[in-house]
Amino acid sequence: MLSRTIIRSPGRTFSTSTAMLNRCIIYTQNGDPAQVIRAITYPKLPSPPPNTVNLKFLLSPINPADVNTIEGVYPSKPSSTSNIAASGLGSQDEPVFVGGNEGLAQVVEVGEGVKGLKKDDWVVMDRPQLGTWSTSRNVPFHGVIKLPATGLTEAHGATMTVNPTTAYNMLDGFVRLQEGDWVIQNGANSAVGQLVIQIAKDRGLSTINFVRSRDDMGPLVDHLQSLGATKILTYDDFNDKSLRGKIKDWTGGKDIRLALNCVGGEPTTAMSKLLGQDAHLVSYGAMSKKPLSLPTSLHIFKNLTSHGFWQTNWSKTHSRTQKEELIAKLADMMKENKIRAPEHTIVNISAQESDEEATAKIRDVFARLAEGKFGKKVLLKLEDTAT
Amino acid sequence: MLSRTIIRSPGRTFSTSTAMLNRCIIYTQNGDPAQVIRAITYPKLPSPPPNTVNLKFLLSPINPADVNTIEGVYPSKPSSTSNIAASGLGSQDEPVFVGGNEGLAQVVEVGEGVKGLKKDDWVVMDRPQLGTWSTSRNVPFHGVIKLPATGLTEAHGATMTVNPTTAYNMLDGFVRLQEGDWVIQNGANSAVGQLVIQIAKDRGLSTINFVRSRDDMGPLVDHLQSLGATKILTYDDFNDKSLRGKIKDWTGGKDIRLALNCVGGEPTTAMSKLLGQDAHLVSYGAMSKKPLSLPTSLHIFKNLTSHGFWQTNWSKTHSRTQKEELIAKLADMMKENKIRAPEHTIVNISAQESDEEATAKIRDVFARLAEGKFGKKVLLKLEDTAT
Repeated sequence: MLSRTIIRSPGRTFSTSTAMLNRCIIYTQNGDPAQVIRAITYPKLPSPPPNTVNLKFLLSPINPADVNTIEGVYPSKPSSTSNIAASGLGSQDEPVFVGGNEGLAQVVEVGEGVKGLKKDDWVVMDRPQLGTWSTSRNVPFHGVIKLPATGLTEAHGATMTVNPTTAYNMLDGFVRLQEGDWVIQNGANSAVGQLVIQIAKDRGLSTINFVRSRDDMGPLVDHLQSLGATKILTYDDFNDKSLRGKIKDWTGGKDIRLALNCVGGEPTTAMSKLLGQDAHLVSYGAMSKKPLSLPTSLHIFKNLTSHGFWQTNWSKTHSRTQKEELIAKLADMMKENKIRAPEHTIVNISAQESDEEATAKIRDVFARLAEGKFGKKVLLKLEDTAT
Repeated sequence: MLSRTIIRSPGRTFSTSTAMLNRCIIYTQNGDPAQVIRAITYPKLPSPPPNTVNLKFLLSPINPADVNTIEGVYPSKPSSTSNIAASGLGSQDEPVFVGGNEGLAQVVEVGEGVKGLKKDDWVVMDRPQLGTWSTSRNVPFHGVIKLPATGLTEAHGATMTVNPTTAYNMLDGFVRLQEGDWVIQNGANSAVGQLVIQIAKDRGLSTINFVRSRDDMGPLVDHLQSLGATKILTYDDFNDKSLRGKIKDWTGGKDIRLALNCVGGEPTTAMSKLLGQDAHLVSYGAMSKKPLSLPTSLHIFKNLTSHGFWQTNWSKTHSRTQKEELIAKLADMMKENKIRAPEHTIVNISAQESDEEATAKIRDVFARLAEGKFGKKVLLKLEDTAT
């Protein structure tokens, strides 16, 4: 397949013998990432056309949604056309999708007409599926948002636009919460759950955090408490008849009006029953793979509203200014270490590795991810290949 | 029990030997209505205190929620105090609850300071659980809303404030619908469902109406079509693989953004999957007694929002002006026969019947209701007892 890939950039065509300076992780068909992805090298980018910038990626996460996207089961699909336009790879007949939705990049060169960006600026992606598992890409300057100049780590910047935005917007967009209010969540040790704890704490909100019970709860409890979790419970505690009374003691009888759910099934039904009048349940995941099952009476008599949240949809329905403001707020919190970078492992693909070696390494990463062998977020660092 | 009931009205105490002119249906403890309710007579009301009116009830429905209220399982509970204040019955120590939440009454006499009401005006209740299964009651004038002077039948007026308001508000309050839009509902032959069909038709909306399948669908289909139903389907049709395509043909591919649910369980899950992007599911009943079970992906990726609707809550959270406007709109539609009065049976309790006879008759009505022996709405007509 790859030998048939036409490599071109807008207005120019390179033979594959041109100096090979860039690398990216691509797939040409959907399937198990450990089977279908591969690393390829492609020519150094020409100077950016008007209103575009050339980016060098510094660090790009592999998120669970990336796996679903490659499998072809994620509702947000990359456009092969946008990938072509952006990278000079593939053709209409031979689509090539560059993997990666999120990432931190540095501006290398700005095209004519570009506003608000200059060489060396750090940027994050403002469009989904831009293909961040690359060394360098050419993208429209409207496709990126500039980060503050200093104070952020690469890991902070690389993980800015999916999880922290989700956590922030769920706390911000459904219920007008005030200092001293309580929020309840399940899957509290998920990437988003941990961010909810930190952002809630910064806002003066208290959190009741449900997690799966495990043999040794100590380290998890310590970790979540260190992030600022107010209370930590397990799904087994839903069977505790005194739970409602305990929560009433904690909250001083104040109604809980926001619940965040990434689990579905029974732990969500039980959690919803702890909510007060006019509450909102916001679902952003379904880790149990079980549907959301709620007694209709909660909706009718307690005026519970059940929503979903998807950051991709938020991005589509909010203005550029709103997005820039959100990124600025999150960056400030990260600089002050109110939001920690997630625990992560950096997978480095160096300039010295051949495409075959790089392909084997990245496929192995996906195989291990599928087996749940990373407990941490995997961040890809692709270096330019040798000439 | 009854012999110990203290009968008084604000500021005055009557002995039970006073002329017995009024009658109402009461209960002093929760339970099966066929066991716990009874008819009692009570003195003719004195002239109304300031800011109150004396009402004579013309017709008052027995709604399903009234049964649940008497059973003690409905979240909206009558206040014995309000009943005392309103009727002169019972005491703090011996609460007496007068049944009935909805009803049509005529103003008999207005107290000092009452604005906007005069003798002979027709009114409906603006407060829940005022005890409408009575011949006469004294109520605060803010507790009622005046109906237009002419053109309404008693059956229209008596059934105005629960079902038509629910249907109207569900069509009005969640999605900004425009002429030509589609609405989907289950339990379409419920009292509210039939009103949804009529109000939707008047607004130029098309409806897809799901009902339980039955041996002879003909009469039901004819009836719902005569109300203005655009399409009528049964829950069995959810198994029809071509359903989605059919609906697409009907709607011209337009997304359906509002679904109304009074069933729960599987027919609601299946109905929700027919909705388009950014849709709202509004639940106002759970006739299947099964919970609402929705794939989380509908919430996350299609941005489905699931709400409940309870007219009692709407009333609490809307201004008097909004309520008056709503009643005026519905009354107009009724006068033009765009909204038909529900099919009904009038149960008359005449002045000649003793309390024992009246009690036996009304208990029998509830026993037959529990067996599902009325297919129609039961409307109570209580006449003043003889002196």
